Amino acid sequence: MTTESTLTLDTKHVMDERLGEHKLTQADLQALAPKVAEILKEIAGERAKGEHRFRELPHERPQVDEIKRIVAERRDAIENLIVLGIGGSALGNIALQSALNPLTYNLLSKAERRGPRLFVMDNVDPAYFEAVMHFVEQDGWANTLVNVISKSGETAETSAQFLIVRDRLIKALDEAKGKDHILVTTDLSKGTMREIVDAQGYRSLVVPDGVGGRFSVLSPVGLLSAAFCGIDIDSLLDGAAAMDKPVSDPNPMTNPAALMAMIYYLYDQRGKNIHVMMPYSQQLRDLADWFRQLYAESLGKIRPSDGKCVGPTPVKALGVTDQHSQVQLYREGPNDKVFTFLEVEAFECDSIIPLAFEGVEAMEYLGRSKNGTLAGLLAAEKRATELALLVSKRPSLTVRFPEVKARTVGEFIYMYEAMIPIMGKLYGINPYDQPAVELGKVLTFHFMGRHGYEKPAIDL
Amino acid sequence: MTTESTLTLDTKHVMDERLGEHKLTQADLQALAPKVAEILKEIAGERAKGEHRFRELPHERPQVDEIKRIVAERRDAIENLIVLGIGGSALGNIALQSALNPLTYNLLSKAERRGPRLFVMDNVDPAYFEAVMHFVEQDGWANTLVNVISKSGETAETSAQFLIVRDRLIKALDEAKGKDHILVTTDLSKGTMREIVDAQGYRSLVVPDGVGGRFSVLSPVGLLSAAFCGIDIDSLLDGAAAMDKPVSDPNPMTNPAALMAMIYYLYDQRGKNIHVMMPYSQQLRDLADWFRQLYAESLGKIRPSDGKCVGPTPVKALGVTDQHSQVQLYREGPNDKVFTFLEVEAFECDSIIPLAFEGVEAMEYLGRSKNGTLAGLLAAEKRATELALLVSKRPSLTVRFPEVKARTVGEFIYMYEAMIPIMGKLYGINPYDQPAVELGKVLTFHFMGRHGYEKPAIDL
Repeated sequence: MTTESTLTLDTKHVMDERLGEHKLTQADLQALAPKVAEILKEIAGERAKGEHRFRELPHERPQVDEIKRIVAERRDAIENLIVLGIGGSALGNIALQSALNPLTYNLLSKAERRGPRLFVMDNVDPAYFEAVMHFVEQDGWANTLVNVISKSGETAETSAQFLIVRDRLIKALDEAKGKDHILVTTDLSKGTMREIVDAQGYRSLVVPDGVGGRFSVLSPVGLLSAAFCGIDIDSLLDGAAAMDKPVSDPNPMTNPAALMAMIYYLYDQRGKNIHVMMPYSQQLRDLADWFRQLYAESLGKIRPSDGKCVGPTPVKALGVTDQHSQVQLYREGPNDKVFTFLEVEAFECDSIIPLAFEGVEAMEYLGRSKNGTLAGLLAAEKRATELALLVSKRPSLTVRFPEVKARTVGEFIYMYEAMIPIMGKLYGINPYDQPAVELGKVLTFHFMGRHGYEKPAIDL
Repeated sequence: MTTESTLTLDTKHVMDERLGEHKLTQADLQALAPKVAEILKEIAGERAKGEHRFRELPHERPQVDEIKRIVAERRDAIENLIVLGIGGSALGNIALQSALNPLTYNLLSKAERRGPRLFVMDNVDPAYFEAVMHFVEQDGWANTLVNVISKSGETAETSAQFLIVRDRLIKALDEAKGKDHILVTTDLSKGTMREIVDAQGYRSLVVPDGVGGRFSVLSPVGLLSAAFCGIDIDSLLDGAAAMDKPVSDPNPMTNPAALMAMIYYLYDQRGKNIHVMMPYSQQLRDLADWFRQLYAESLGKIRPSDGKCVGPTPVKALGVTDQHSQVQLYREGPNDKVFTFLEVEAFECDSIIPLAFEGVEAMEYLGRSKNGTLAGLLAAEKRATELALLVSKRPSLTVRFPEVKARTVGEFIYMYEAMIPIMGKLYGINPYDQPAVELGKVLTFHFMGRHGYEKPAIDL
């Protein structure tokens, strides 16, 4: 097996002459490159001192053996896996599942599935929650496993869901048996959830120290549900590990994470503050949602040095679908966007368009075309759209997947994660905190009557 | 049954003093109101002359009886309904289904479902397409109905899917029987798809004249799949019809469509060009996606009078989920957004959070709280988030649904649709065309080798 990364980054449509003043030149990039070279050096030094811990996950692979053990023990006995988590405890799980299993996975028979059905409950809407509960209860709690993911146990949404599910498990199975159906992913030693795990004797996995939620997909947070559902987590981690080399390249012009960081940053500086990620692949759609959290929560910050509010707004789109929804705006609306396409070179299967209705050209050409398959049509539409954007002076870049496999998805995740601290240093902000989320949390505690939060944090 | 509309629009968080210079004042609105009053008069006049045809759909209800007949004849015999359509031929179908049926609908048994499983195929990714085909083929084509939606038959994606599905139906069932499993929604009299319908003898429904794709959800385009899946389309249309009165109010200060149009327009003029719709309801999530097409494709235009590129960028978010993904950016990033929350006053069910782990306050308060249900928590979090945004000077408005029912969803759809031509006139653009989509289409034809498109429309 190769240890080289296989994704490619195509930047020709940010450099094309037809973009006019919206083009980035080699000179633009070269002007920023020394600063980014410094940043890469800093990051390498910090990493050596134990910072940027997410970078080590594919090498250290904490608890991967334990995950495999749990899966081997339990997979045959369970039909439904419920993940209770939100934000970084959910988006990675969802993205891996839709990228690497059929989009009809939950509908398949047990024989066709590679593991249990997966329900990632990342909202507290009661109609949604009870719809899933109803389904699971019919199927029986005895063949359901619940993975509660919360580093602290302070997340109101996950705690509320945990309390409800635990109660129903106990009622259905009794207290002792119910415990076997709860698996908690939490801090190794501290926090409310760890206390509960220890007191109740739940089986548990560990959220690694120093890895924030949005960087945790390649840890037990994201790997357990993936492994349960038959995803090759070794390949996923191999892909991430292979990407470590290019994104550690000290030359920003050849380091893909640094090059993307420069392009996104320069365009944002020039007023293109809306950064659209548009996979031409239904399966990669939720990976764009994962990206959206990574980007927004890491970079949307008040810069300490000058108090300025910075951070591009990530937008998730989908090719070809959104050609019929957003491309009108993308071409004729304000030129305030930069587009990142995710392109797949070889799909795992293809559908030949049959020749029919000869003489009716609007149908016949599809069956006659040398590109006359759904993958061929998808590729033609992607090319058409990027050219149409180009002649409207809208820049785009393409991340090309040779195929959608655990390995390439691992590469993609690691490349984008590695880009974030580079961008953080360009913006002069801390990409690892999320101070602005705090106020909403404490106001929620106030409204819910939590002791210690009797006085609201602001005038209501 | 009341004929009054029941949605409410809450604008207090665009007028709050804490917004400082990001506040809209009564004076700001009053200054724009005379122009909008003129616009409302114009629209009323144009409507009387037969323009803005979508406004008549809930009154005229074209083919609703025919839809009910088809559903009554076929529903018991079919297990799977496949909609082949994209953009306006898909987004409404998806939005109605997720809003008005359980989110686990396709997983339910036949006895629990109110109709067939629904698959809306709005992409040409072969992995996705074949996953659905595989499922349907196992279940048998004999109990599958395919609704092909294309006004012209020129849409490459829908035509390609139609050719593939038709071929497989014929192979599985023979030519004559296969025909019975295709139902086409297309133009009454012209276009490729109408020719094919007539030549092949397919049963068909009509896309009403003068109603563009993104305004067509309340026509047979959106109603057939809804009716098949047990959604009360009469109530849906009743809701839309009830909303006609308030959105026809000539006073912009009391007409909710006009008031929203003014707020969105004024904020866009002041640099808040990112318009986030954030339902606090999993079921309303896809309605935000429907809105995203309506808004982007209608308003993202080059203004003829001055050649300026206009149009706010719609963004879809989800409460509470995106509090853990986007709110950091929303509060601390650039103040370039206006937020629209969709709030549900009464959910169809609720989940009581049980009291447990007494003494562990991080758990106990949830079970002890007078708001200690999932709906209570959701409401507390929505309130916390809007206040947190407010103190960061980020304006928001709330559209309040008394409940999520066909009737309120109908009201919502009609209110937003009615807002669009008002905004179109404020921006000085035609909200009903989509000229910028054309180039991508003809380039696709070129790449696919369609006769007449041998010469590419641009230099490649």
